[in-house]
Amino acid sequence: MSFVRSVIPEFEAANQKYAASFTKGNLPLPPGRKVAIVACMDARLDPAKVLGLEEGDAHVIRNAGGRTVDGLRSLVISQQLLRTREIVIIHHTDCGMLTFTDTEIKSKIRNELSENADHIAFLPFHDLRQSVLDDIEIIKKSPLVLDVPITGYIYDVKTGKLEKVQA
Amino acid sequence: MSFVRSVIPEFEAANQKYAASFTKGNLPLPPGRKVAIVACMDARLDPAKVLGLEEGDAHVIRNAGGRTVDGLRSLVISQQLLRTREIVIIHHTDCGMLTFTDTEIKSKIRNELSENADHIAFLPFHDLRQSVLDDIEIIKKSPLVLDVPITGYIYDVKTGKLEKVQA
Repeated sequence: MSFVRSVIPEFEAANQKYAASFTKGNLPLPPGRKVAIVACMDARLDPAKVLGLEEGDAHVIRNAGGRTVDGLRSLVISQQLLRTREIVIIHHTDCGMLTFTDTEIKSKIRNELSENADHIAFLPFHDLRQSVLDDIEIIKKSPLVLDVPITGYIYDVKTGKLEKVQA
Repeated sequence: MSFVRSVIPEFEAANQKYAASFTKGNLPLPPGRKVAIVACMDARLDPAKVLGLEEGDAHVIRNAGGRTVDGLRSLVISQQLLRTREIVIIHHTDCGMLTFTDTEIKSKIRNELSENADHIAFLPFHDLRQSVLDDIEIIKKSPLVLDVPITGYIYDVKTGKLEKVQA
């Protein structure tokens, strides 16, 4: 398999510690602050810390780039079944999605894994600000998403600050 | 629009506070602990707190149910471009995905939004343990995902504890 040391023993020790002082066992299923966040999976971005979220507050949907088209299934479930009524999008500086093209990753997969990934749209982007505007637009245009307030941000991984993206 | 009070002023105030004491401005792009987490978007589950993650540690992919098939694009990018070499899956008790069927949500959308969502697989499940096993299997079988250690957990929203799911 791999010579990298597994994170599992550390994760399980951390979880024991978390559970030992756990006091949030009676929270309801629907998010208390009625908001769904769509954010990049990037390791440096912790949406709960960045936005001051507590357990029970918000749905947090994350994927490579924080792309809303990839989060559509989750957003519809969030709104239709769990009654969120606001959406916040967070992309960030120094994003991996700025470093490759769809063609490049497909070539890499063909060369290194001998597999064809032509059926996947990897959704990279070359303009960070535009990527946020595009992702707001995708939600606004989707007939499956309710007409709710949507706010888009760029998170700066160097400063910890959010910058609002205005059209 | 909506009479619900927006979360934005509170989110921006929380972010100012976070940024004011921010010390993590020099982290590299690839996750330091070389792991990708796939977890449910549920508001009560904070993967960073549950697993003891710091900024920079891990990719966190989240969607309704923590379904790996929906996270495949992100997992491939995580492994191919940012060199993660372990996967952890977290589903949880009292999950919204246990409360509906694909047919039911499609009917709801047809009735309430007058829209057809037949092109979306909403991926609900009726057996929590089996959903974790299924999601491990999907990754193991995908030729686009490297053969890396995969661990699946059920998070108990009442206790804060992770339970490992063994096949």
